[in-house]
Amino acid sequence: MARPDRKIDLPVSQVRRYLEPGPIVLVTSALGDARNIMTMGWHTVMEFAPSLVGCVIAGGNHSFEFIRRSRECVINVPTTALADKVVGIGNSTGAEIDKFAEFALTPQKAQRLRAPLIRECHANFECMLADATLIEKYNFFIFEVVKAHVAPSPKHRETLHYTGNGIFMVSGRIISRRAMFRPDMLAD
Amino acid sequence: MARPDRKIDLPVSQVRRYLEPGPIVLVTSALGDARNIMTMGWHTVMEFAPSLVGCVIAGGNHSFEFIRRSRECVINVPTTALADKVVGIGNSTGAEIDKFAEFALTPQKAQRLRAPLIRECHANFECMLADATLIEKYNFFIFEVVKAHVAPSPKHRETLHYTGNGIFMVSGRIISRRAMFRPDMLAD
Repeated sequence: MARPDRKIDLPVSQVRRYLEPGPIVLVTSALGDARNIMTMGWHTVMEFAPSLVGCVIAGGNHSFEFIRRSRECVINVPTTALADKVVGIGNSTGAEIDKFAEFALTPQKAQRLRAPLIRECHANFECMLADATLIEKYNFFIFEVVKAHVAPSPKHRETLHYTGNGIFMVSGRIISRRAMFRPDMLAD
Repeated sequence: MARPDRKIDLPVSQVRRYLEPGPIVLVTSALGDARNIMTMGWHTVMEFAPSLVGCVIAGGNHSFEFIRRSRECVINVPTTALADKVVGIGNSTGAEIDKFAEFALTPQKAQRLRAPLIRECHANFECMLADATLIEKYNFFIFEVVKAHVAPSPKHRETLHYTGNGIFMVSGRIISRRAMFRPDMLAD
């Protein structure tokens, strides 16, 4: 049985393996005694080392001020087992409810941050704000992943990929083209 | 039979339906009489209207100067049928070969740009550089999609999602959670 609560460290330069395929993620944050969870589909890897991830967090989100002021968050990757919770989290606001309680998710202490991890997600990336330049204009936050925790197996889990309109694509089969790659393209 | 060469217009505010799930894309560009194709996995939707997409295009790519100087490119979305070409394009350089000829892809005239579309891709998004602020520091280009062409069916195609290390995830089944969404969350 998958045990998403038992995790190992992943070198932060390898978070692209989880984020580049484009899964919907759950972003956790904390401010004072409050904490929150939001769904996020607009993110991209930006660099291997430092490990940078760029994310759009719209100003209307209750999490926006939490993250802008605390300068940190956790990017958690859910599997399809959490599909209904992901949708519920995206369609409610932390201004009204405690989403951890409401959706029966377990906050777990992060190693480097005050924002909590979500135990039920198979990967948790602890992020610190690295560049705030484009927040005002585009709600675009550039984070550095400072610590990465992943469930050791299976390597490829069923993730959710949002296509708008209430419709998700679920990750499918895995194909290798390693033999066709130049060796220097396979480092990460 | 799928006819990726017969396309219809998509409102540019809806390109998220194609890009948010995180497919690997082929970026075409032109400078003078030269043209090129590169693969790109690091991109994110940033806004609906104007339709903004942020992309990392590393300085080592032959396409980097084409795009920086021409201030435009086309984001083309390939299906799994093009998997071997996608890998070949990512493992070769336009400094040595004409990738359209080498990989037997058909350049097609764009409507708003000089950069060509790739006919064999099922979606083509014509992009103009909207913000160059972060190019120098992060190789991060913010484009506005000014015209979008998509094959009308099927709606969900098998796309390739890169996980590093020569391994791709192929898009899988489609699930709807429309019934669980607040109506105002379903606009796009």
